Amino acid sequence: MSGRFVVLGPEEVALLPPPPLRDPSLPSSRPSSPSRGRRDSSQTSISSPSFFSSFSLSSTRAMAGIWLLLGASVLLLLGSGRVSSHRYDTNGGLEAAAERRAENLHRLDTIILLTYITVLIVIVLTAWLFKHYRFRFIHETGVTLIYGLFIGIVLRYFNIGLLESQTFDVVPKNATTVNEPPDYLRLGVNGDAGKTVTFTYELIEGFFADSEKKKHNERKIEQKSAFSPELFFNVLLPPIIFYAGYSLKKRSFFRNIGSILLFVFLGTTISCIATAVLMFIFTRIFGMGFAFQELLFFGALISATDPITVLAVLNEKNVEANLYALIFGESAMNDAVAIVLAATIDSYTMTGDTVDLMGILSAGVTFVEVFVGSLLLGSIIGCLNALLTKFTHISEHPILESALFILISYTSFLIAEIVHLTGIVAVLFCGICQAHYTFNNLSVESQTTTKRFFQLVSFLSEAFIFCYIGISVFVGNNQKWNIFFILFALISITLARAVYVYPLCELINLQRRPPIPKNYQHMILFSGLRGAMAFALADRNTATENRQTILATTVAIVLFTVLFNGGLASWMIDYLGIKHGERANEEERATTSIQPDEVGDYTTTSSHSGVTIASTPGHNPWDKAFLPRKWYNFDANFMKPLLTHATPSLTETLPSICYPLAKMLTSDRQLLSHQPLRMRYDSENGSCSMSNSLDQILS
Amino acid sequence: MSGRFVVLGPEEVALLPPPPLRDPSLPSSRPSSPSRGRRDSSQTSISSPSFFSSFSLSSTRAMAGIWLLLGASVLLLLGSGRVSSHRYDTNGGLEAAAERRAENLHRLDTIILLTYITVLIVIVLTAWLFKHYRFRFIHETGVTLIYGLFIGIVLRYFNIGLLESQTFDVVPKNATTVNEPPDYLRLGVNGDAGKTVTFTYELIEGFFADSEKKKHNERKIEQKSAFSPELFFNVLLPPIIFYAGYSLKKRSFFRNIGSILLFVFLGTTISCIATAVLMFIFTRIFGMGFAFQELLFFGALISATDPITVLAVLNEKNVEANLYALIFGESAMNDAVAIVLAATIDSYTMTGDTVDLMGILSAGVTFVEVFVGSLLLGSIIGCLNALLTKFTHISEHPILESALFILISYTSFLIAEIVHLTGIVAVLFCGICQAHYTFNNLSVESQTTTKRFFQLVSFLSEAFIFCYIGISVFVGNNQKWNIFFILFALISITLARAVYVYPLCELINLQRRPPIPKNYQHMILFSGLRGAMAFALADRNTATENRQTILATTVAIVLFTVLFNGGLASWMIDYLGIKHGERANEEERATTSIQPDEVGDYTTTSSHSGVTIASTPGHNPWDKAFLPRKWYNFDANFMKPLLTHATPSLTETLPSICYPLAKMLTSDRQLLSHQPLRMRYDSENGSCSMSNSLDQILS
Repeated sequence: MSGRFVVLGPEEVALLPPPPLRDPSLPSSRPSSPSRGRRDSSQTSISSPSFFSSFSLSSTRAMAGIWLLLGASVLLLLGSGRVSSHRYDTNGGLEAAAERRAENLHRLDTIILLTYITVLIVIVLTAWLFKHYRFRFIHETGVTLIYGLFIGIVLRYFNIGLLESQTFDVVPKNATTVNEPPDYLRLGVNGDAGKTVTFTYELIEGFFADSEKKKHNERKIEQKSAFSPELFFNVLLPPIIFYAGYSLKKRSFFRNIGSILLFVFLGTTISCIATAVLMFIFTRIFGMGFAFQELLFFGALISATDPITVLAVLNEKNVEANLYALIFGESAMNDAVAIVLAATIDSYTMTGDTVDLMGILSAGVTFVEVFVGSLLLGSIIGCLNALLTKFTHISEHPILESALFILISYTSFLIAEIVHLTGIVAVLFCGICQAHYTFNNLSVESQTTTKRFFQLVSFLSEAFIFCYIGISVFVGNNQKWNIFFILFALISITLARAVYVYPLCELINLQRRPPIPKNYQHMILFSGLRGAMAFALADRNTATENRQTILATTVAIVLFTVLFNGGLASWMIDYLGIKHGERANEEERATTSIQPDEVGDYTTTSSHSGVTIASTPGHNPWDKAFLPRKWYNFDANFMKPLLTHATPSLTETLPSICYPLAKMLTSDRQLLSHQPLRMRYDSENGSCSMSNSLDQILS
Repeated sequence: MSGRFVVLGPEEVALLPPPPLRDPSLPSSRPSSPSRGRRDSSQTSISSPSFFSSFSLSSTRAMAGIWLLLGASVLLLLGSGRVSSHRYDTNGGLEAAAERRAENLHRLDTIILLTYITVLIVIVLTAWLFKHYRFRFIHETGVTLIYGLFIGIVLRYFNIGLLESQTFDVVPKNATTVNEPPDYLRLGVNGDAGKTVTFTYELIEGFFADSEKKKHNERKIEQKSAFSPELFFNVLLPPIIFYAGYSLKKRSFFRNIGSILLFVFLGTTISCIATAVLMFIFTRIFGMGFAFQELLFFGALISATDPITVLAVLNEKNVEANLYALIFGESAMNDAVAIVLAATIDSYTMTGDTVDLMGILSAGVTFVEVFVGSLLLGSIIGCLNALLTKFTHISEHPILESALFILISYTSFLIAEIVHLTGIVAVLFCGICQAHYTFNNLSVESQTTTKRFFQLVSFLSEAFIFCYIGISVFVGNNQKWNIFFILFALISITLARAVYVYPLCELINLQRRPPIPKNYQHMILFSGLRGAMAFALADRNTATENRQTILATTVAIVLFTVLFNGGLASWMIDYLGIKHGERANEEERATTSIQPDEVGDYTTTSSHSGVTIASTPGHNPWDKAFLPRKWYNFDANFMKPLLTHATPSLTETLPSICYPLAKMLTSDRQLLSHQPLRMRYDSENGSCSMSNSLDQILS
């Protein structure tokens, strides 16, 4: 009935969250340990029936509030969405009509934006409630999908945002036949005072042919709220992928780098081919007309696994660090492999129809070229930013520094796309480089700002994409549902994942100490959720009916895996008897004797810890393989001293012949810090700014 | 020749930025005081010729670097921008053509994005250099405009992003005459295997009629890089205006609230009417065909002054706080008045052509309704968010809390637009409310996150808009330059500003102690820069030639005022003999004996300072007017205790009859904190998160 408060002493009051009241039907909810705040003997418990305490009494009541909010927003949508007719009445002429048309379009855009923002608010509140009451049976991502489905139904089956519109059938003026759709049409309209005004029309993006039966006599919010795939690729995916790289749990990731790379490259390729072969057999048996290239493309895009939901569960259950690193590493990086595979297959499809060895070989070469090129481009841009932040004093102005960091990171994506490489791969490796080098050069303000900024943007982007996947089922007309194809696909992807997880694990276990146990292998198989990347790839081209079937199937697979695998992940960990909880990772730490460095816990002194490791090679956390060890030494002796203010500077690590060059590339801070002193810039002004002026931002 | 370093002691090393080397031609650049870091007796000076020290030797060399970068990006643009022809070759058919078309569009979008991002990077670097070398003769905003002009010329006069395209002249199928442009056209195309495929075309947004002479035979990046005005209104302006409210320097703002409101309401209205009347006289003398309503609309939009540039200068020179508050308060709030005025005039134009008293009266009523309605809506949403953050424990999950804060703030804009109020006004007052109430309820992490997020987004949006204003001169075809109209406009707006600044100041001085001196009045007149809001309003509707003239004139005025007034602002402060520097504000503080609270320096204890003031009414920093004092008391006794965890809780401030209600609306934290204890939530996990998973974000 009341929140619990523990007064810690005269100077400090700890306000504990009220212990979540357990619904007896939820066996997995556990109360927060009340012993946590009690570190002082002078404890006083105060019982206070405040508004919130009574509000937080039951989770059902809170959920009812959320649903009320969702309902209210739907009502608002229903009430306000009916945009008034904009037929151009004769008085006022074309100009007034233009005014009204612009106004109606603005209203429609605003309603769509408000719909999405309201859903996002509801998602945030739901996510908070789920955290607060420790629901386990369904994850926020799943709820987001369900909300999306619900909003999609509302948008489709209620006449929201009805905008009366006119469609004319036209023919070319000079009566020629048209063999390919022109980009623009021009139509003469009788304007005011009898003179003809010409208006230009543009081919609707997406370019897919409109079936005759679908009349465009009215435009609905439903149509407008379908987004261009460009939005996903250019705006929403880059921050998610960048943040995956930027927040990489470096130590346990690099300790498992060999296994992860094997999964990522060999595993994804096997999965892609196995899915395609299985689907090819299925479609041939049931007489569906899919070309092998199309199925290969499907195999590639559906091999991109999504880390969000399952990692959330793993993290919450505090699962052993190596399993976490394997699953996270694979899902973060196989997006990159899948997108390059898909692009390679797509371009291969276009050149010819026959499968020949030369073609496959050249596709393989293209794949390696594009992947390595994108990796290098992203890394180079990350390193350039590290140099820029090392050798300038821009860290005196944290806002400028953060802005520069964000802009340059985005550049890596755009440049890669322009030079025909893969932006997603570039942005992933740019993120890893920035975390490894640039981060250490940033001012403390920029470190938190950039971290929080990308965390926030990535969280909102993910929520938006999952919500949109739900909505897309009912909105837009580029999905063709085929229940058999979906069933085949579900079977195929499970088999295809099994086909590479178990053999590759056995292969890895030949060398790896300790080996990957069987229950970990089952868990890796079970963690094959699909998400944003698979959807974005499928949504990109829906010109043919087969492509529309592929998109619908991808959406179905995302829905199924997120709701089913995501929902059962927590239960599965217990069922498989996987070590979890505090104990699992404490044992871990005891064996390696190195505290795993927490992402988001980087400090300016992290370079020093690097030094410690370099001087004690016995604690090297990397794989013992030859190449990783070589790279590690190169990194510690050359890259880190060059790109950051890390302490064994180039003047010490390079041979003495290079001394003048090394001296030039060593920062003043490095020269000064042979002992681990704490540094600070003497910035003339504080870091707080008083208004939105450029100048103040800088001070 | 060398950076200077001062070792402060064994535990602390202060790394001073190298003193900026003065270019003898720049008399205003001053070296940073070398005495700053010397607080310890054990000083050691180390001379170290590092890479950066030699790099930072001359500002010219650094500027050369920036220009090299700009040049390189232009070259990249020239090289990569030439998108390959996408004419649909016969093999592959319509499907392959769709693929190629989508790819080309993606490339074009990417190139445009990269152009803007690169320019933003160059702007950030320039801004940093300008800060670093203390250039005074031109401000970053001015440089941004000039970069924009430069990029505009490149986009226009070099064939970048050439995309071969086809345009067909069409007539309606059934040969009827068309009197109004339909929204969609449908065209039959002979597809593969002889069957006809129908493609749909959409009327190009912006809706302006295309002049016959302009052929659409090729589409260039130039055309694609012109943005829809929707982007400014829905995406770029809201964060700028919100941040203006969120970062309001509360104390000095409220101390001058009476004068500011007079300027904002009466001043903007006078300026609007005076500009219109003067322009009407000019256009009649020179025989230009402008209706009075059009000029009134122009008067309204051009009355929105922009705070960025001049406030940056005022802030840098540390000008006396009252003058700063007057100029900031006016420019932040007259945007809101101007946008409502413009909308009122616009809707009035559409109903009739004759000016009658009833029409003016009803327009006045509409103005008040819309303004007050938007103000209330924004404030209510701000207060709702304050309640939400006060009575829930969402602050345990800072990322969710920040996300909620941002989403709800944006909602205020969208809801206002949908219910036919003005989003900008709503978002401004929502920002003020959030700063005043909600901010105090947020967790420390969210306080910094939201502050930095909006600062960053607002900075980038501003930079983008000013860059785009420059680009728009050469790109897009909705500007009609008329040099006479521009000259008249410049004279008119200066006169119109003089017409209200001096009389209103005299009026205010009747009551105000100390009065506004003459040199402050001149400075206020001189600070009338125009910027983003004026441009966005003018860009919104360019359907007629007169509207296109108005847009071109607005762009010219922005360019002139930012470059001329902005450039001379620093000199003007010296010329007018306005008090500035540390001394000016120390005197100030001595007289009021209250430290002005710095925006961005809010702490959770700010409520306590509110208490202090309430208990010592002699130090009340507000205007002594009746209404503000009443409001202040209401705020301290009811609003703050209700909406925040401020200490004199409702149980103490409300009459005892309301005790049960007051108790319910009082948080546990308020009940506990009769003495100023430091509080903290005992969140179970740290605030740092390890990957991009939803769950981890929450922990």
